[in-house]
Amino acid sequence: MKETLKIIKIGSYILDDEVLLKKCLQYFSKIKEKKILIHGGGDFASRLSDKMEISVQKFEGRRITTMEVLEVVTMAYAGKINKSIVTALQYLDCNGIGLSGADGNCIESHKREVAEVDYGFAGDIDNINTDLIESFLNLHLTPIFCAITHDKKGQLLNTNADTIASEIASAFAKKYVVELKYLSKQKGVLKDLEDENSVILNINAQSFRKLKENNIVTEGMLPKIETALKSISNGVHTICIGDISMLSDNKGSYTTIKAIGE
Amino acid sequence: MKETLKIIKIGSYILDDEVLLKKCLQYFSKIKEKKILIHGGGDFASRLSDKMEISVQKFEGRRITTMEVLEVVTMAYAGKINKSIVTALQYLDCNGIGLSGADGNCIESHKREVAEVDYGFAGDIDNINTDLIESFLNLHLTPIFCAITHDKKGQLLNTNADTIASEIASAFAKKYVVELKYLSKQKGVLKDLEDENSVILNINAQSFRKLKENNIVTEGMLPKIETALKSISNGVHTICIGDISMLSDNKGSYTTIKAIGE
Repeated sequence: MKETLKIIKIGSYILDDEVLLKKCLQYFSKIKEKKILIHGGGDFASRLSDKMEISVQKFEGRRITTMEVLEVVTMAYAGKINKSIVTALQYLDCNGIGLSGADGNCIESHKREVAEVDYGFAGDIDNINTDLIESFLNLHLTPIFCAITHDKKGQLLNTNADTIASEIASAFAKKYVVELKYLSKQKGVLKDLEDENSVILNINAQSFRKLKENNIVTEGMLPKIETALKSISNGVHTICIGDISMLSDNKGSYTTIKAIGE
Repeated sequence: MKETLKIIKIGSYILDDEVLLKKCLQYFSKIKEKKILIHGGGDFASRLSDKMEISVQKFEGRRITTMEVLEVVTMAYAGKINKSIVTALQYLDCNGIGLSGADGNCIESHKREVAEVDYGFAGDIDNINTDLIESFLNLHLTPIFCAITHDKKGQLLNTNADTIASEIASAFAKKYVVELKYLSKQKGVLKDLEDENSVILNINAQSFRKLKENNIVTEGMLPKIETALKSISNGVHTICIGDISMLSDNKGSYTTIKAIGE
């Protein structure tokens, strides 16, 4: 029987709230199965850019990574946020190891090609070093990945944390029963954004088409679900979207994305 | 026969000079034995503090680490500098892994007690996790340590990079023939600071006493040599102080610190 691997992704909503982050890491530290944490931190990076008077341009909500912005996100993600999480987990007796994609060549990517928009030093993932990451897991280490990868040619690259989570999940799907959880502010994918209790409990490729046709899923959620469905077709067992209670014993409602027929 | 472990420490003089750093990492990447790199980066951190309008106080040349300064050094050392080195080494086919003391609980320290001066969040080292670091070496990884440790109670601590190098060297001295190299601007410990060719080739505890008595060794070098002699008494085989040519095939003069009688 395949072993379970739990992959959790957290973003600015949790990272920016000290109390929520503490609670989240407490829940995370208690997960008994092999586990990996992936974090973003865009809001902290934006505040840091402001402090340093570096202007950040975005296109359709995505940051344009100039050389200056790359320096800022590397300091924010791989420095401040990553190390704060790792030391907090160490206190909780969870043996975290903070990693960027450059460390141990864990995540290799290439600079996104310039098409309509030049995203600058943004990376699209080519390879996940599952052998090394598995060696870490076997050493009872818990990898904590920040959203920085590299091209193996000496260039660090800013990489979407949702995508990193999804690619790591897919890469481990052959060997492990992979459960991927995206922690969000909302309790899950909502039917009605005004009603936080209108969580859609289950989504698969078929039902997602209908939700899209009926304009029930909003723009912000679309790429997340599309990425999730891609991971499912790559063999990832389950993907959940919901708030941090998903990690607790006292789970509320949340959205589960599975393959059709499961 | 014991295996050799080479430990190299670099500081701001090399880190701030792109060409010199590149050359240094090229030399470092070619070392065939197991190896560890330790880096500081105080000058970059100072410039970053200036940019963020954070005032840094020092006492006898040592930074006072307030909470704000700790955030800056964590971003500078564990973020920007560490990841830049790692990705540069990856390009040179050296499988670097960037680490703070919190990662894998590699270096545990405690907050320096307040005596004459309150150094703030400065860490004094208690333990080096040689088992885990050796596991990394056996996975053909090259640990790249920045000057941040933690207290295992959730607090990151700013820690002197020379001391980290010396403590790691001492911790591995039982199992390995440890060679520790401090790379500096000067070619070694100089008899006459005005004459860069006045390198003192050999120092041991006995000759050091004489150098001190005759005021030949200057204040800046004193703690470095004292720390080095402590490592030697802990069983470290050799400690060298010199410029980056020490890592090349074409070595110039440099200072070697050894036990008395060797």
